[in-house]
Amino acid sequence: MSGNSFGLLFTVTSFGESHGPAIGCVVDGCPPGLALTEADIQIELDRRKPGTSRHVTQRREPDTVEILSGVFEGRTTGTPIALLIRNQDQRSKDYGNIADTFRPGHADYTYWHKYGIRDPRGGGRSSARETAVRVAAGAIARKWLHERYGIVIRGHMTQIGEHHIPFRSWDEVGQNPFFAADNSVVPVLETYMDSIRKSLDSVGARLRVVAENVPVGWGEPVFDRLDADIAHAMMGINAVKGVEIGAGFDSVTQRGSVHGDELTPDGFASNYAGGILGGISTGQDIEVSIAIKPTSSIAQPRRSIDKAGHPVDMETHGRHDPCVGIRATPIAEAMLALVLIDHALRHRAQCGDVRVETPRIPGHIA
Amino acid sequence: MSGNSFGLLFTVTSFGESHGPAIGCVVDGCPPGLALTEADIQIELDRRKPGTSRHVTQRREPDTVEILSGVFEGRTTGTPIALLIRNQDQRSKDYGNIADTFRPGHADYTYWHKYGIRDPRGGGRSSARETAVRVAAGAIARKWLHERYGIVIRGHMTQIGEHHIPFRSWDEVGQNPFFAADNSVVPVLETYMDSIRKSLDSVGARLRVVAENVPVGWGEPVFDRLDADIAHAMMGINAVKGVEIGAGFDSVTQRGSVHGDELTPDGFASNYAGGILGGISTGQDIEVSIAIKPTSSIAQPRRSIDKAGHPVDMETHGRHDPCVGIRATPIAEAMLALVLIDHALRHRAQCGDVRVETPRIPGHIA
Amino acid sequence: MSGNSFGLLFTVTSFGESHGPAIGCVVDGCPPGLALTEADIQIELDRRKPGTSRHVTQRREPDTVEILSGVFEGRTTGTPIALLIRNQDQRSKDYGNIADTFRPGHADYTYWHKYGIRDPRGGGRSSARETAVRVAAGAIARKWLHERYGIVIRGHMTQIGEHHIPFRSWDEVGQNPFFAADNSVVPVLETYMDSIRKSLDSVGARLRVVAENVPVGWGEPVFDRLDADIAHAMMGINAVKGVEIGAGFDSVTQRGSVHGDELTPDGFASNYAGGILGGISTGQDIEVSIAIKPTSSIAQPRRSIDKAGHPVDMETHGRHDPCVGIRATPIAEAMLALVLIDHALRHRAQCGDVRVETPRIPGHIA
Amino acid sequence: MSGNSFGLLFTVTSFGESHGPAIGCVVDGCPPGLALTEADIQIELDRRKPGTSRHVTQRREPDTVEILSGVFEGRTTGTPIALLIRNQDQRSKDYGNIADTFRPGHADYTYWHKYGIRDPRGGGRSSARETAVRVAAGAIARKWLHERYGIVIRGHMTQIGEHHIPFRSWDEVGQNPFFAADNSVVPVLETYMDSIRKSLDSVGARLRVVAENVPVGWGEPVFDRLDADIAHAMMGINAVKGVEIGAGFDSVTQRGSVHGDELTPDGFASNYAGGILGGISTGQDIEVSIAIKPTSSIAQPRRSIDKAGHPVDMETHGRHDPCVGIRATPIAEAMLALVLIDHALRHRAQCGDVRVETPRIPGHIA
Repeated sequence: MSGNSFGLLFTVTSFGESHGPAIGCVVDGCPPGLALTEADIQIELDRRKPGTSRHVTQRREPDTVEILSGVFEGRTTGTPIALLIRNQDQRSKDYGNIADTFRPGHADYTYWHKYGIRDPRGGGRSSARETAVRVAAGAIARKWLHERYGIVIRGHMTQIGEHHIPFRSWDEVGQNPFFAADNSVVPVLETYMDSIRKSLDSVGARLRVVAENVPVGWGEPVFDRLDADIAHAMMGINAVKGVEIGAGFDSVTQRGSVHGDELTPDGFASNYAGGILGGISTGQDIEVSIAIKPTSSIAQPRRSIDKAGHPVDMETHGRHDPCVGIRATPIAEAMLALVLIDHALRHRAQCGDVRVETPRIPGHIA
Repeated sequence: MSGNSFGLLFTVTSFGESHGPAIGCVVDGCPPGLALTEADIQIELDRRKPGTSRHVTQRREPDTVEILSGVFEGRTTGTPIALLIRNQDQRSKDYGNIADTFRPGHADYTYWHKYGIRDPRGGGRSSARETAVRVAAGAIARKWLHERYGIVIRGHMTQIGEHHIPFRSWDEVGQNPFFAADNSVVPVLETYMDSIRKSLDSVGARLRVVAENVPVGWGEPVFDRLDADIAHAMMGINAVKGVEIGAGFDSVTQRGSVHGDELTPDGFASNYAGGILGGISTGQDIEVSIAIKPTSSIAQPRRSIDKAGHPVDMETHGRHDPCVGIRATPIAEAMLALVLIDHALRHRAQCGDVRVETPRIPGHIA
Repeated sequence: MSGNSFGLLFTVTSFGESHGPAIGCVVDGCPPGLALTEADIQIELDRRKPGTSRHVTQRREPDTVEILSGVFEGRTTGTPIALLIRNQDQRSKDYGNIADTFRPGHADYTYWHKYGIRDPRGGGRSSARETAVRVAAGAIARKWLHERYGIVIRGHMTQIGEHHIPFRSWDEVGQNPFFAADNSVVPVLETYMDSIRKSLDSVGARLRVVAENVPVGWGEPVFDRLDADIAHAMMGINAVKGVEIGAGFDSVTQRGSVHGDELTPDGFASNYAGGILGGISTGQDIEVSIAIKPTSSIAQPRRSIDKAGHPVDMETHGRHDPCVGIRATPIAEAMLALVLIDHALRHRAQCGDVRVETPRIPGHIA
Repeated sequence: MSGNSFGLLFTVTSFGESHGPAIGCVVDGCPPGLALTEADIQIELDRRKPGTSRHVTQRREPDTVEILSGVFEGRTTGTPIALLIRNQDQRSKDYGNIADTFRPGHADYTYWHKYGIRDPRGGGRSSARETAVRVAAGAIARKWLHERYGIVIRGHMTQIGEHHIPFRSWDEVGQNPFFAADNSVVPVLETYMDSIRKSLDSVGARLRVVAENVPVGWGEPVFDRLDADIAHAMMGINAVKGVEIGAGFDSVTQRGSVHGDELTPDGFASNYAGGILGGISTGQDIEVSIAIKPTSSIAQPRRSIDKAGHPVDMETHGRHDPCVGIRATPIAEAMLALVLIDHALRHRAQCGDVRVETPRIPGHIA
């Protein structure tokens, strides 16, 4: 497998290039009987789609999804669900000049050396456009997780460049173009992003994603730990350079007497673990944080080389996000959903639906 | 698969509990013809084994490896290589009091809820003892990678608690018990660790792992990116809470004009990418950094509950590492080797051994 | 994975129902640089498509394939190749009466009990229509196998009902509607099939598939033997009830002194092994034979039950093949191609492209 | 994966050579809580072990199994179960002369060309000795299947050479050295086998394996059909050349009006399908039949070549089964158990433990 499938039991196989006829995926392993329409998927795609504010790419893509299979009379049948999104706004001319050169920070150079051939139109397969299909597949996963377990997966931006964004309320995340959980910082961010864009530059971001109501007991002990699979999922998102679970890098300076979350009859006393111990969910919130690098496509000149090895100056015009982190929240949420549903299914494969009855902690979240 | 196998083509299947008869693994997919003896593996196991200084657990385990199959007259045959390490020093009595309670920060609670049964002796499968088999399997991988491509994989500790440890020389890493790349800081670290131990506490650490001479073109574009698989591998190590590739979380505040490594006829001008673009190796050094939480087993009393949900005070005696990060360097190196060999084999499956001839950058590292 | 993907390294993920909007697949792992157009695929689809003679179903499906991704300027890029075939002739009304009953010999009963829901239109996912995507994916595999290794994969019908069909020439296979390798038997077969059809009945068939020029050394020794994977592929075709490699069931009465193919300096002296020893190709022709059951959909009344368990009489009208074996030859060829390309890639992953130089048998086929 | 693992969710990874230190396997994915001791496994190994009659190899191997992990206080814990069988009777001198030549009908030639190296002692990895670990792993699977679902898996020999063996009673299978379900034929078979052995020859066999009480609904619709996976499992047994499900090759001459099993309120009226429709179990008995080729190692001279391509005469002495089919029944049963448990777990992953309530056929076997 050349790495275009995700998940062992709830398997998403992605296809498509940025400027080819279409992108899409096949979702295999979805439990039967889930109510599902295109609208359930479209609502998530619309959260990610380009062109919604001046702070993101101005490419016009309606990202309209078509369900090709696996659903009968509004319910999943247990067979593969194929999702198709036709590409609309393919201004390949914007990219024509890059066929023989390598954009700094892009995959042009590595694709070329790997395959000896690459589709240069809009970055081809390496384009962030591919992430739309993850959001689409994730929409199915999160619907099932919510209906069956009440799981809620949400994310927000916690930092953009130097600006830390405090958490005030989940409700505010959808009320501004930055996925900020505090509307009061939005004017500052808008000014900041305008200045970044005017300086023909880009900037990085940090996001937090949380899953609530995950039952205790999901995950596997050794290699495919829940946190390991989350790290795989998150680092597999374009531009992500770092992943943390719970306390993350802060745990380096913590003492064991602080970090190790104590248990009480009323539940855990803290959540430095981020909801995962020994690779298995504790029933607390799953807490993930990711770092997203600044967009590589910027309009100021940069040094590069062409295929012959000769130096060239590159200015990447076209329609790019000045901060790819802005539209990344729905993607990170989707990837977390895909990890969770896969482990939900793995868990019931090995341990059954009805967990062995054990004394439970009163008041515990699970 | 319940998560005890790692790698698609070079597959390591791990087994064994801390205080059972043995731990070990099966390595399937090793190319034939590699010269291999138990000594090649033992040398890596000895770097990780307990009891080598007062700063690590005093458990006495020689960790002697036996090759059970897959090697004939000193060479791998292409068939599965089974490695066996018998457990020797199993003082289960040290752990007897924990069968009915859950140690804070440990997997006791999650295993119990997942399986309805757990082997409490020394943490059973969740013990860091399991990582010995990763080091053993990794020894095979790194030998092949080195012989065939000249790849060198090395790691060192960059921080322990509040103490940052500068890089001076790879040579010094093996000369002190901390895997520090600067011997001059060792006295300070020793005093620091003595005080941590005396306060019945533990502390976290940060490690850096580097792979040199990785050819350009390894990795897959979408889900199984080289960096995603590295994140999976690293977060799958016990106690790891964060993973960074290249600039990692520093990329949040970087500008695109800085982060995007420029290309010149003499090679890349910087390596903020950490040797990976679009999920595929660039030929530069692969740069990884990980955060390791403080040891959860500490001898000071902590609040917990028993299986019945009643509150208990836990003091975890026994022989524990005051900083599990100290012995983690060989493990992280091994996991990086396992990721790289798997992608080496994936690459030649799809793209062949002889890469398509492309203009190469003069002086480039690849 | 719910069983809709085939192959570890050259992975085909199939989707689609008989009367849904479309069927198709994603091919992941195709080596880059292969010249590929829709015509390369269409030619194989046309060999399988319905409506080409009075002896097969009269459903009108042009089976026009669209390549959605993975090909740039006429060459594969190494990224996933998505293939789409829109369904055209969906006379669902033909099938409306079967939504609440179970057709004997069909998957209606098992799907219903497995999923609690099923798409009854034309058999939904269990329809032989799904095999079109296997033929499409197989067309890519056989093109690569032929260009790189000169491998030729061909099949023909060797028996239909009581009629054994001798082998005269590969050339004749494409000259009659039965995939018979002897045109002289065609009049007899036509009369035979007309009488079967008039009696409102159906009949089984036996096919032979051969792969020539397969290099020695493909296959894995234990579970994923080349013959085991071929058996998996063939028994995975709708209606197949038996698979033989080489001498097959005749080997039961053979003596070892006959069955064990002797080796001479000029090559093997016989091929009872069918080109595979110890699960690995010998360089001789791969010889496979399969049994295909009679079509389950027949127009004469049969006993069955409805969902409530009450007895019903079923007459399955609609447009059905009186012998599903007739159109199965291209499918069996395609599946053999999919197995071979997967093992070709596995082989070069583990053993490299350049096989270790060994003394070879002069005149040997490999 | 180089083909030494079997099963997606209940995964057996096999290792070991015939004359190496040991053979064994790791079983990953076994549900927790199953009562399991070495005796449960030993009883199945003893049914397969050599030296039990004059009609099988006289190699003396006690095949004593040791459980190395995954079991605590007599119950499986959900973690990997490693099984170890030390080799005892390794008369490698018997085989010394074959290091530079290729035995007809053996894997010597193909291993050599695949890997460029092979372990010639006793056939190394290609020895039927490897099948002991399948029997061991299968013993765990069948115990779980029986305890949870009441599934019974049994096999018997139906033909040896020209001798058809009728079915009289399951009870008689264990009462004679041929796994014949009719003791009255044993004297004839003994005389027959003595004559085969005296003529320095060997002969093939045919076996039937049946699984009773398999619930309706196990299996996947397209590639990983239950019958396809059974075919993979059976053809993956050394020396198997053919596999049939239900009517098998007899279905070629059957009419659809006969083959398609009618349904009645009291259950199916026949079982030509062999308990599987559309790749999914029907609740009837799973019926499998396999052909096993005559042993390749015979003591009469045969033509072969050496590594240099020069002609040689081979007489394979040593201790060989004159009919490898005799000891194959426990192996085929074990493989069927491994397929069934894997699909049991897949089924409950996707569809849950509690099947959707559907009207059931009164008196039906499921």
